[in-house]
Amino acid sequence: MSEVYIAGVGITPAGEHWERSLRELAFAALEGAANDTERLLGGRAPAEALFAANALAGQLSGQAHLGVLIADFAGLRGIEAVNVEAAGASGGAAIRQAYIAVASGQVETALVVGVEKTTDTIGGRVNAAMATASDSDFESVQGATPAALAGLLMQRYLHTYGLEHAVFADFAMNAHANAKANPNAMFRNTITRDAYARAGAVADPISMMDVAPECDGAAAVVLTSRPTAVRVTASAQATDTLALHDRPDLLGFDAAQLSAGRAYKMANLGPDEIDLFELFDAYTVFAALSLEAAGFAERGQGWRLAAEGQIGRDRRIPIQTFGGLKARGNPIGATGVYQVAEVALQVRGEAGASQVPNARVGMAQCIGGIGANIVTHILQAA
Amino acid sequence: MSEVYIAGVGITPAGEHWERSLRELAFAALEGAANDTERLLGGRAPAEALFAANALAGQLSGQAHLGVLIADFAGLRGIEAVNVEAAGASGGAAIRQAYIAVASGQVETALVVGVEKTTDTIGGRVNAAMATASDSDFESVQGATPAALAGLLMQRYLHTYGLEHAVFADFAMNAHANAKANPNAMFRNTITRDAYARAGAVADPISMMDVAPECDGAAAVVLTSRPTAVRVTASAQATDTLALHDRPDLLGFDAAQLSAGRAYKMANLGPDEIDLFELFDAYTVFAALSLEAAGFAERGQGWRLAAEGQIGRDRRIPIQTFGGLKARGNPIGATGVYQVAEVALQVRGEAGASQVPNARVGMAQCIGGIGANIVTHILQAA
Repeated sequence: MSEVYIAGVGITPAGEHWERSLRELAFAALEGAANDTERLLGGRAPAEALFAANALAGQLSGQAHLGVLIADFAGLRGIEAVNVEAAGASGGAAIRQAYIAVASGQVETALVVGVEKTTDTIGGRVNAAMATASDSDFESVQGATPAALAGLLMQRYLHTYGLEHAVFADFAMNAHANAKANPNAMFRNTITRDAYARAGAVADPISMMDVAPECDGAAAVVLTSRPTAVRVTASAQATDTLALHDRPDLLGFDAAQLSAGRAYKMANLGPDEIDLFELFDAYTVFAALSLEAAGFAERGQGWRLAAEGQIGRDRRIPIQTFGGLKARGNPIGATGVYQVAEVALQVRGEAGASQVPNARVGMAQCIGGIGANIVTHILQAA
Repeated sequence: MSEVYIAGVGITPAGEHWERSLRELAFAALEGAANDTERLLGGRAPAEALFAANALAGQLSGQAHLGVLIADFAGLRGIEAVNVEAAGASGGAAIRQAYIAVASGQVETALVVGVEKTTDTIGGRVNAAMATASDSDFESVQGATPAALAGLLMQRYLHTYGLEHAVFADFAMNAHANAKANPNAMFRNTITRDAYARAGAVADPISMMDVAPECDGAAAVVLTSRPTAVRVTASAQATDTLALHDRPDLLGFDAAQLSAGRAYKMANLGPDEIDLFELFDAYTVFAALSLEAAGFAERGQGWRLAAEGQIGRDRRIPIQTFGGLKARGNPIGATGVYQVAEVALQVRGEAGASQVPNARVGMAQCIGGIGANIVTHILQAA
């Protein structure tokens, strides 16, 4: 197996792009990644394969087949191209497929581009489309949206551990605080503890401040076997039950444990050696559960890392360093690519005002459904 | 790189399954493949990864995230799982990802399961869903369905080569003749030349007898690095423009040429050594163009292989040996998996009444959109 490195990355602003189509967003990200690659490697790196990550365009834009759509528009006619879908984990899953392809030696360089549009859609049925990530025969058919299901999870967390909703405030506040330095973030306003407490309910106990905004966006990452400054030392994926009600232990977040565990084993390191963790804070409760499942906190203690100020950029385990899903925005299928691109910038020491001091080892993790499909990557300075 | 073999295959009847859900169909295929694998290898082969192939369930069944849905229902909780989408080429593309994973050595055994349901759908919008394989901003927005676009292609073929519609009859007749021996085929009735001539138009010049019926179905294939009787000696994919109007040469079927060419190079053989070719006859004109692009006929002569009786089971280049898309049925995202499963049975000499005599080398090719994304696999007796 070849070693796998990350060359250029391209990130477009997450937000509402009423004037830019799927292909235009994807192309902007690919162009950014190509320019970045040229700067890093001193030349273009022709790619043999393109992996698109998109979850909802078939439903929301009447456009499937994104592998070809993007390859064609980017002038890569002839290249092999496919779309990888794993709901919210699509971005990480596409990077994993590209990783496997490069590691196998069949491909020297692969492009990954995540793109999603939740504005400017057919009939505006974004919630229904997002609910297709859940079990249609047993969950969404009952009207349970992802936020409603995440609400059940948060309620279980609060009940089991005897906590108040307010313990999650610092996840939202940290995200918005970090987003201020990120020009690609959707929300750069400060959230106060008071504003968190007053936020309207989305799906009790989840409030507007617990849920990340779905939005438009595209990000791209170039994976290659040519040595660069950032090596992918782990790529791992794991699944859980699709339906929440089938899990014997709701708070175990088993797929996150499995996925992170496999990644640690592959990179031969543990949570103590991780300098930053781009976790998937689609809901604040996911952040707490992911920190626990990945070994940064004991069960029921993940919230405490936030409440005690240990998630800031210069603290024990920086998370949401570019704003996380909550403030950078959550362009569903593209989010996992944003995360890996952000970690790559951190490990390169090129994260600008978002830089985590001395970041040498970064982890990115994305989640499809309510913890049903979880992909973890570890990036290290080469 | 590891060598890649095909262990068990599982095929469910293609047709209308009003009483079976996506997960039930997929499970039936996986169960068939598991039993077949057990018989072949003398034991179970635990898989580390599952690749689902599905194109339309998000739109038609309100169910995305099929990797987890199927892994969970099949009792494979924890396994890595993802859905691969490339429109009608989804099945081949999923097999290609599984091939890469096994070849890379990261996975010893991978499951591929293609599944699609076009009956029992939300609002019955099957044509609109299938049109998402085309360019939504320039083609489907104008009302151009895939059949309408394929009609333009067929018209160009007839015009350029000065032919009558009737020259395509033998493709449909061969499909139905071969399907008689296949209990999993949707249509096992005979088509006469007269019936072909009288068939009603779908999108002129394409008639009911030129277009394969979309349907429900599931098929599964187990790929492994453990030696079996069938080795995958080539796996290749290529793209063309998504929109038909962007192609300088409509009849080149460039992605098919590229894809087959890459496959021949990888397997180190040529069309003369192929004993059967499961091509993607979603439309009869595709069959002619694929035969030409893969080197079985000169340009403009593909139809002649059919008209001259060279595509039968015991002739020059057997195609549609289990009925092809036209008579076995076309369960869109699953079709590419059916094709590879059928070729595996042929190469094993276990195709029963559908057996091609002395089949040692078989090729399967599937197509997304109107020739926009084409995946080719070559299977050889090991």
